[in-house]
Amino acid sequence: MTIATDRQYRVEDELLHTVLASFQNTPDPRLKELMQALVRHLHAFIREVRLTETEWQHAIDFLTAAGHITSDRRQEFVLLSDVLGASMQTINVNHEATADATEATVVGPFYVEDSPEVPLGGDMAAGAPGEPCWIEGTVTDTDGTSVPRARLEVWEADEDGLYDVQYDDGHTAGRAHLYTDDNGRYAFWGLTPTPYPIPHDGPVGRLLENTARSPLRASHLHFKATAPSLRTLITHIFVEGDELLGSDAVFGVKHSLVERFERQPAGTPTPDGRDLTGQTWTRVHFDIVLAPQPSAQRSA
Amino acid sequence: MTIATDRQYRVEDELLHTVLASFQNTPDPRLKELMQALVRHLHAFIREVRLTETEWQHAIDFLTAAGHITSDRRQEFVLLSDVLGASMQTINVNHEATADATEATVVGPFYVEDSPEVPLGGDMAAGAPGEPCWIEGTVTDTDGTSVPRARLEVWEADEDGLYDVQYDDGHTAGRAHLYTDDNGRYAFWGLTPTPYPIPHDGPVGRLLENTARSPLRASHLHFKATAPSLRTLITHIFVEGDELLGSDAVFGVKHSLVERFERQPAGTPTPDGRDLTGQTWTRVHFDIVLAPQPSAQRSA
Repeated sequence: MTIATDRQYRVEDELLHTVLASFQNTPDPRLKELMQALVRHLHAFIREVRLTETEWQHAIDFLTAAGHITSDRRQEFVLLSDVLGASMQTINVNHEATADATEATVVGPFYVEDSPEVPLGGDMAAGAPGEPCWIEGTVTDTDGTSVPRARLEVWEADEDGLYDVQYDDGHTAGRAHLYTDDNGRYAFWGLTPTPYPIPHDGPVGRLLENTARSPLRASHLHFKATAPSLRTLITHIFVEGDELLGSDAVFGVKHSLVERFERQPAGTPTPDGRDLTGQTWTRVHFDIVLAPQPSAQRSA
Repeated sequence: MTIATDRQYRVEDELLHTVLASFQNTPDPRLKELMQALVRHLHAFIREVRLTETEWQHAIDFLTAAGHITSDRRQEFVLLSDVLGASMQTINVNHEATADATEATVVGPFYVEDSPEVPLGGDMAAGAPGEPCWIEGTVTDTDGTSVPRARLEVWEADEDGLYDVQYDDGHTAGRAHLYTDDNGRYAFWGLTPTPYPIPHDGPVGRLLENTARSPLRASHLHFKATAPSLRTLITHIFVEGDELLGSDAVFGVKHSLVERFERQPAGTPTPDGRDLTGQTWTRVHFDIVLAPQPSAQRSA
């Protein structure tokens, strides 16, 4: 916008250093590091774009609206972080890529603790509408050793694009946990994932609209895998061929997490003899590799 | 924290570029510029500090708490912007320093439109408790030409550290507007400014506490000066010798705005014959120089 003169540069730089110095006595060294870095990047942004006072006011109004729509059931600041890629970048930073562990992705706003347990081969859909899908695979560590009794939590939207918690009736469906067998194997029935929009009737939705972005998420099914001495993994599997893979609203797609869901014609016998008369169904194989537990200070 | 490997660097960089590309079709070029710059600086912050998922969650919780305390009478996001120096840096950017115009500073949360008018020499304190102060000076443009009928809005806290709007009774005091005379001169009675804390019973107050910073603002009196064809100025005057000048919670102090408030012993005759029997009072001289109106596109 404006070319800053030397004098102007000095005025802005002096303020920056005054603000940085104000955090000098922060007792916690990590908080001090975070605040000083935040100030440096925030001021660099304001100075680079030559932020106008009107734009500053719009930002204040945006944050205010986001705060006011946020409730126990709606988290607009998480949505904002998601659509700016900040959630995914934080996950990247905390899961240094290795060649051999399954990649992590965003947890999203629909995870619930204490989902019902289903046995191996059980149906986590529990009546949620959609095409049945048989999901199976193994859990191993990065040495290839199978992980018996690994806990898998799985959750997904129904074919109407809604998670159980988005209904008002309090029912649980499309959400369960199960354990791998003695050989680290698992299998369960769920639903073929379908695309759905993130909640977009608030300020984040208006931001997406004003920037010509779609609120749609690529079709996916969530996994959280937990096992002693191994790093907890939160991830999704995505559907090969889904046209939204390249434009996921929250940037959650990793190439390594895209799996082939093979559609079976109606009448194809099911792996466990389940009767799905007249219905198509799909099957997918997803092997999960868990990294070693990180050192204690990283998980603090 | 962690030294990123080449592979890790590529993973993080690829995400950054995917997020930047998602804003590529933003119709408004300025919004596109702002969003892409915001994403670059936000991701740079996350990557530089190697933000943990716990810290990310704390940030979400902080913004949520700030949103929930914000109301028509309380603006926690403005306070946050203020204590990070972001408000003051935005003002700096929008008021490119010139050698000859009066410097601007933060408007703060206590400005109210349509304050009562007082005549030249009138008392804007209107019963607010504190030591009387005679404030006088001139308004000129940067060529030194006096500005008749410039509108001056002035507001300040009382000696208890509170603005009128912080009381629940709806009274108006310590707030007025007046106009310069034919020679660009003004004078009015107010109060000798005293220090006070910004509202610090919310998340911003906890941030200040956790970073060993004071919520106190240096003593000041607010001015807003408006005149045709000249740039509107929002500023303060500060009190020479105030020990808080170097640690103002919102970084509003500019050296050029620090003025000498001369204390007068009780019984000293007042400029306009006002009877202040038995009371000390102060006087200060503050000449205001207004810059030319900026070009139209800067004020958009």
